[in-house]
Amino acid sequence: MNRLKRVKLNQLKVKDSFWSPVQELVTDEMIPYQEKVFKDEIPDVEKSHALANLRIAAGMEQGEYYGMVFQDSDLAKWLEGAAYSLVIKPDKELEQRVDAIIDIIEKAQQPDGYLNTYFTIKEPEHRWQNLLECHELYCAGHMMEAAAAYAETTGKDKFLHVMERMADHIEGRFGTDKERGIPGHQEIELGLMRLYDVTGKDKYLKLAKYFIDERGQNPNYFKEEKQKRDWDHFHMDPENTFYNQSFAPVRQQRTAEGHSVRAVYMYTAMADIAGRTGDKELYEACVRLWDNITQKRMYITGGIGSTVEGEAFTKDYDLPNDMAYAETCASIGLIFFAKKMLDIEPAGKYADILEQALYNGVLSGMQMDGKKFFYVNPLEVNPGISGELFGYKHVRPQRQGWYTCACCPPNLARLLTSLAQYAWSEGEDAVYSHLFLGGEFDLDKAFISVHSSYPWEGRVVYHVEGKQKSAFKIAVRIPAWAQNPKVLLNGEEIDVDSCRKDGYCYLERVWGKEDILEVSFDMRIRKIYANTAVREDAGCVALMRGPLVYCFEGIDNGELHSLRVCTGKEAKAKERVCTEGIFKGMTLLKVPGVRMTGSEQLYSETAPSSEPVTLTAIPYYAWGNRGINQMRVWMLEKR
Amino acid sequence: MNRLKRVKLNQLKVKDSFWSPVQELVTDEMIPYQEKVFKDEIPDVEKSHALANLRIAAGMEQGEYYGMVFQDSDLAKWLEGAAYSLVIKPDKELEQRVDAIIDIIEKAQQPDGYLNTYFTIKEPEHRWQNLLECHELYCAGHMMEAAAAYAETTGKDKFLHVMERMADHIEGRFGTDKERGIPGHQEIELGLMRLYDVTGKDKYLKLAKYFIDERGQNPNYFKEEKQKRDWDHFHMDPENTFYNQSFAPVRQQRTAEGHSVRAVYMYTAMADIAGRTGDKELYEACVRLWDNITQKRMYITGGIGSTVEGEAFTKDYDLPNDMAYAETCASIGLIFFAKKMLDIEPAGKYADILEQALYNGVLSGMQMDGKKFFYVNPLEVNPGISGELFGYKHVRPQRQGWYTCACCPPNLARLLTSLAQYAWSEGEDAVYSHLFLGGEFDLDKAFISVHSSYPWEGRVVYHVEGKQKSAFKIAVRIPAWAQNPKVLLNGEEIDVDSCRKDGYCYLERVWGKEDILEVSFDMRIRKIYANTAVREDAGCVALMRGPLVYCFEGIDNGELHSLRVCTGKEAKAKERVCTEGIFKGMTLLKVPGVRMTGSEQLYSETAPSSEPVTLTAIPYYAWGNRGINQMRVWMLEKR
Repeated sequence: MNRLKRVKLNQLKVKDSFWSPVQELVTDEMIPYQEKVFKDEIPDVEKSHALANLRIAAGMEQGEYYGMVFQDSDLAKWLEGAAYSLVIKPDKELEQRVDAIIDIIEKAQQPDGYLNTYFTIKEPEHRWQNLLECHELYCAGHMMEAAAAYAETTGKDKFLHVMERMADHIEGRFGTDKERGIPGHQEIELGLMRLYDVTGKDKYLKLAKYFIDERGQNPNYFKEEKQKRDWDHFHMDPENTFYNQSFAPVRQQRTAEGHSVRAVYMYTAMADIAGRTGDKELYEACVRLWDNITQKRMYITGGIGSTVEGEAFTKDYDLPNDMAYAETCASIGLIFFAKKMLDIEPAGKYADILEQALYNGVLSGMQMDGKKFFYVNPLEVNPGISGELFGYKHVRPQRQGWYTCACCPPNLARLLTSLAQYAWSEGEDAVYSHLFLGGEFDLDKAFISVHSSYPWEGRVVYHVEGKQKSAFKIAVRIPAWAQNPKVLLNGEEIDVDSCRKDGYCYLERVWGKEDILEVSFDMRIRKIYANTAVREDAGCVALMRGPLVYCFEGIDNGELHSLRVCTGKEAKAKERVCTEGIFKGMTLLKVPGVRMTGSEQLYSETAPSSEPVTLTAIPYYAWGNRGINQMRVWMLEKR
Repeated sequence: MNRLKRVKLNQLKVKDSFWSPVQELVTDEMIPYQEKVFKDEIPDVEKSHALANLRIAAGMEQGEYYGMVFQDSDLAKWLEGAAYSLVIKPDKELEQRVDAIIDIIEKAQQPDGYLNTYFTIKEPEHRWQNLLECHELYCAGHMMEAAAAYAETTGKDKFLHVMERMADHIEGRFGTDKERGIPGHQEIELGLMRLYDVTGKDKYLKLAKYFIDERGQNPNYFKEEKQKRDWDHFHMDPENTFYNQSFAPVRQQRTAEGHSVRAVYMYTAMADIAGRTGDKELYEACVRLWDNITQKRMYITGGIGSTVEGEAFTKDYDLPNDMAYAETCASIGLIFFAKKMLDIEPAGKYADILEQALYNGVLSGMQMDGKKFFYVNPLEVNPGISGELFGYKHVRPQRQGWYTCACCPPNLARLLTSLAQYAWSEGEDAVYSHLFLGGEFDLDKAFISVHSSYPWEGRVVYHVEGKQKSAFKIAVRIPAWAQNPKVLLNGEEIDVDSCRKDGYCYLERVWGKEDILEVSFDMRIRKIYANTAVREDAGCVALMRGPLVYCFEGIDNGELHSLRVCTGKEAKAKERVCTEGIFKGMTLLKVPGVRMTGSEQLYSETAPSSEPVTLTAIPYYAWGNRGINQMRVWMLEKR
């Protein structure tokens, strides 16, 4: 098994007309906003109390713990995001404030290495008794990821050492020939792998692998645990083994089941471990699970987890649009999983979905002002129904300032600030460009500066400055949907077919100091049909252009369910670059359609008649930025 | 205000090729089956214990109360059905068993007239303290209806006197200048009106009117009540004033809100009181509520109450098919309401809907063997999803033997056995035929014998034997959908247009001893479209023929959401009378359609292609009689 290298973020400088403004929003608005939330300084949003919990645990403040049992993890994800943001935009004051928080974390750590504000403040006698419900390992995993990130981006190791002590505490307790245990919510595996990355210590990889392999073994750990303790936290039923993916040993799992964030975090760790250890059986399980998700259980937006009940996967082809769950965190987790798979096998099937989730189901999680967030990302919203009636109560028709369970906002922060890492991998003999991200990228084999006006235009230029005298490949992704892809090397056209393999175009040579590689393709508007087995998309069409899924909003188009999108040969949707307002610079679509008008009666024999209309479609990620109104991705089609 | 007379059941003998077998099923299977359920003699179904509760309350047996707080009402509805069934099929043994039950009821009645097994056995100290939740008035109302029915059909008055004593007990307690009170679940009003019918005692009408008018007055009774007591039964929130229609005085209500059975029972009582008292304001409220239901909040099947949450109405045009609630009892209540409106104003808009609910959303509640029942009547069922996943758990894909809350099965029994009463009304100068029900009907003005092969054929023959020397009208309903209606009087064609008014054809004359009136109309297959505001029916068509809504089942047609019904001018659905199997004698439809086949991929640019197929549609009421399989009423259309 090939195994590509994750490129360190410090080497990567994003300068992209699409993403740099988003990253600026994150550094300038979202990270400061979220910091204020953690400090309970934002009025009229759900209270966080995450920093106060930490200070109380550190003995610096009197007070009661407040929040979910996993409140520490919100702060951890933010710390990770803050660490990455320092690469995008060095900020001494932020760094000092983070250092101050790390000092508190260190003080909150117990003499034996234990770190968790909930159990330290509220139930010290209950530590490690309820892994099913209490997220101790989950919070530890997020703190490890944050600590590793901060060490990597700042070179400071205090936080890293704190988390190494916690990892050692855990490693001293759980494992083969030690106490049995697995996390109720997978994440520790990812944290341990990040510690392994940064420290190179095998024991962390070994422990991560233990947690992965122990899951689903007989007897089920969670059932045993529940019998041992006489207290519950959430009254979770350990018999619901799908929920936490303990229904079978992970290597035998064939379908993506249960809580979708738990699932994709686990698959990410499985892929990471498989890649590093060459564990073929584990890798094959990952491929099966990837295929099941992306071929049967994923929204076109890259959203996963169709149901609010258990925030879970349901069944093949069950993808309701108006009842969708499609948690932002789940799509983020799908990106994590995709990247780990790419690092084993650079194939378009992973990168295309990574990109699809990123530009749609993930980016939709954030208001264009960076201050409001979706937890649930529906593909259809109906004001007066969504968020109000049974079945739709979880579907908020507009983004919220904060959530009681606030996993998504800081998860967005850490993903978006580390985005460059998802754009590149380096192998022994190749450099891989997965995403068309403009910027300056100081890779081991070459310094590559990229100019791109993606996703609006399909043209990307790579200025390559080779660093080695021997030949190596630059592999540039060609999306599966790209029509007429053209590749020019120093102005000369390359035969794409001859160098294209699994979604990448491979160009091997000794790269000079001023080589220019230009990739371009047609960004036509694509009419997308779902598999006919998807009940909820029957008779419908969705529009994509490049990686972007488009949607229709009521504010532009009126009542959406009485409209049809014309898909006949004559009917051509047109692009229009928006020149003003909040959508300035975006390519919107003008789509030929009809509006159906029927009888006033509730039921009648009068077939609705149609009048032609021109519909406006906007990128899905931008929906819900103009007040509460109707939205649909899948529109009924008129052929 | 005109006010028609309810014709007594004893005068009406149904002999109908469609309904007589159904009534036989009720008398021969359903009523004996339900009697066994009440006696806890049917294994593997939800336990009823209703008769045991009664014997315990009567001091004839030791034991604990079991069941819902309204368990008495199941038995009451069955008693009412049994009373009616004695007209259809005299049965001395059944009558003796009913008499024996009435003896127990009498014994269970307390010295002060109080009758309710739950409070007598379990919480005698809590009587009349919790009208919001505890159904004391509801159970009393059903017992009153049963007692009045039994008195009317058998002439025996013991049960009637028992319930008069209970009514007097209630009347002594509640009313203007007495204790305040209204029922949490409306029904007592209907019971009192039936007592008023049979006894002619004004006090019962007055008390019914009190309960109607007191609802929704300020301060809200339920909120006051809740403050007074220190116990709850169901933890209902009296602030949810929509649920029990206490959000406004009933005369001011403009939309059908809340629990749909509560609502239509109340509207029925309102219409009944309005009709008898000439209360125009109350009547106008009824018209508004009727129009709101039937023009904005009713399924094509006559199902009402779109959501499982509170078994309630939701919003105008919100009619999800696969999440429908559409409780059998609610459609039955809609029929009650329709009949009371008809008795005030004989108009097609009431009778057409009465018939539509009867042949579809009501009849679907019963398995063709009479032993299994739907509580919820969906318009779309998807095996593996319906009854299993969030949002669809209440939608059972097959009928059940019994329910913990078993309101629907005995409600079906009493409606179907008293069906003839819904077919006729008599006014001062006219006889109204609302339903095309074959049989012999001994009305005050005429003896009419009807031959009909409805709903399969649109031809009904009335043999009229006038009983009076003066002229009177016979008004025969002409359904709004009937095309080319023809009326022949003694073989001579009448100009329908000249005698048609509000859905009825009026023929006035001195009726002889052997007049023959023949009504016929075209029973063509109708393609029905929903108002374009109904999201869930957009792009779809449903088929009706006569009063019957048709549906498609997977067993006949394969995967339903990949099919389209062709509606072009060329595409004609055909009738085929089924000659064998459980559907023998039914008219099924052979419908031109296409099956869509697309890419194997979850999402692709390949538009599904179509191949022509012939689809089979069956009457909606007959669905679910061939094992679990997919079902849809609304099918995507290919024009």
